[in-house]
Amino acid sequence: MKGGPEGRFTRRTPRIVAAAKLRRRRDRERAGQFLAEGPQAVREALARSGAVRELFLTERAGQRHPDLTTAARAAGVPVSWITEDAAGALTETVTPQGVVAVCEHLDRPLATVLRGRPRLVAVLVEVAEPGNAGPVLRTADAAGAQAVVFAGAAVDPYNGKCVRASAGSLFHLDLVRHPEPTTALAQLRGAGLRVLAATGHGETDLDHLADAGALAAPTAWVFGSEAHGLPAAVLTEADDRVRVPIHGRAESLNLGAAAAVCLYASARAQREERRTP
Amino acid sequence: MKGGPEGRFTRRTPRIVAAAKLRRRRDRERAGQFLAEGPQAVREALARSGAVRELFLTERAGQRHPDLTTAARAAGVPVSWITEDAAGALTETVTPQGVVAVCEHLDRPLATVLRGRPRLVAVLVEVAEPGNAGPVLRTADAAGAQAVVFAGAAVDPYNGKCVRASAGSLFHLDLVRHPEPTTALAQLRGAGLRVLAATGHGETDLDHLADAGALAAPTAWVFGSEAHGLPAAVLTEADDRVRVPIHGRAESLNLGAAAAVCLYASARAQREERRTP
Repeated sequence: MKGGPEGRFTRRTPRIVAAAKLRRRRDRERAGQFLAEGPQAVREALARSGAVRELFLTERAGQRHPDLTTAARAAGVPVSWITEDAAGALTETVTPQGVVAVCEHLDRPLATVLRGRPRLVAVLVEVAEPGNAGPVLRTADAAGAQAVVFAGAAVDPYNGKCVRASAGSLFHLDLVRHPEPTTALAQLRGAGLRVLAATGHGETDLDHLADAGALAAPTAWVFGSEAHGLPAAVLTEADDRVRVPIHGRAESLNLGAAAAVCLYASARAQREERRTP
Repeated sequence: MKGGPEGRFTRRTPRIVAAAKLRRRRDRERAGQFLAEGPQAVREALARSGAVRELFLTERAGQRHPDLTTAARAAGVPVSWITEDAAGALTETVTPQGVVAVCEHLDRPLATVLRGRPRLVAVLVEVAEPGNAGPVLRTADAAGAQAVVFAGAAVDPYNGKCVRASAGSLFHLDLVRHPEPTTALAQLRGAGLRVLAATGHGETDLDHLADAGALAAPTAWVFGSEAHGLPAAVLTEADDRVRVPIHGRAESLNLGAAAAVCLYASARAQREERRTP
């Protein structure tokens, strides 16, 4: 353990300067690293083997969360003490929590992830808002999805806001970044997953699909951006275009709500199937 | 129609100064009015009888959305032309859309709303974040809920961010503000609604409740804040404490996702019941 209350890193220490650069996408890509901040995210990061390269803590945060230094030591992760001011340089939030981990990029090729035979996958196509993508990661995790695919010109999953909004789920799931949405869908289908595109104008009603028992099969749900929806080529590539029924007068659901309803509909159907062999 | 390209209201015109004050909660309460901005929200407001007291439009917005002035005239709502600068004074967003309606508060007493015999109601207990409450309004509307109750020390539903995030749904639903959460639940129960409290630690699994056919009955779903959950007295007052099952390793769902899953589970069960008399 380096630093220590007398020798703490400041925002001018080269290691802090280098880490603070990871707040920018270009520097994240170059280093293949990103920052996770806050005790919850860092705890989940430390629980994932090989994810954390280095842990920075203020004295106050170290005292408040002694489990983090214990976990870091057990995982062989170097811990450095930092000043409150250095914590401010490493974070985008107004009230830094004094715990920041430098993490290695986690994404893996789709082909590798598919060898694990996932039964539930979420695909985000050109979703640009980190405040939308992060919560979908969390919901996908809660619904038991094994993987989330960021396809096309999507938000960087390692964006600070996305990492925070995922509430640690980024470290639980298999993460894929795929440049080509239609190719990704073809690969998913080739691996035996039924590809369902969620779209307000879908010809298939989600409830009817559930009633027909069609949701128990291994499924990849595909979601588009709130502003632009799904590209025509993606809609064509999907096995079904599915609409969440609108019972009231709202024009549509937001992305987070639509993903929650669709992924949980599959989770329920897959759970039923496990109970009734 | 007052103003006109030559006599447009500026940010110093007394009517604009008075309207701009409605960005503050205290002034909204005093006036019993609030602001709705953007073509979508204003369109929905104009469609609700008696909701809009006055409409402000920039020339550019008036040209882009001629349906708004037509609808305002049909509803007998006075329309005034404003400068782009005045539009900036009336909005909290970075890029004002040039359309702002001064609306009357819409909420009604719970007892009045219950006389309409709603079958699906969402109750937000001490939810403080407008960015959480607004999307729940939209989801509740989409799921076919007839009413949303803001109970206890909750966010002001007329807060600009909440109005924007509701995407017009604020004007579709019966809105109730109730100071006392447990009293509100007792009233809902007295009106024959089954009161279900959504909580991560609930003893009842949502899927089991659905399997048992218990969700087809008239239901009030109760949601708490993400930070604090539901108060003990509210949990006690509910008929059931229900957890959305967590299939993966996420600690919990966010409020918007939990509300979407719960409200749509009820919507599906109530729809099934309508189909099979």
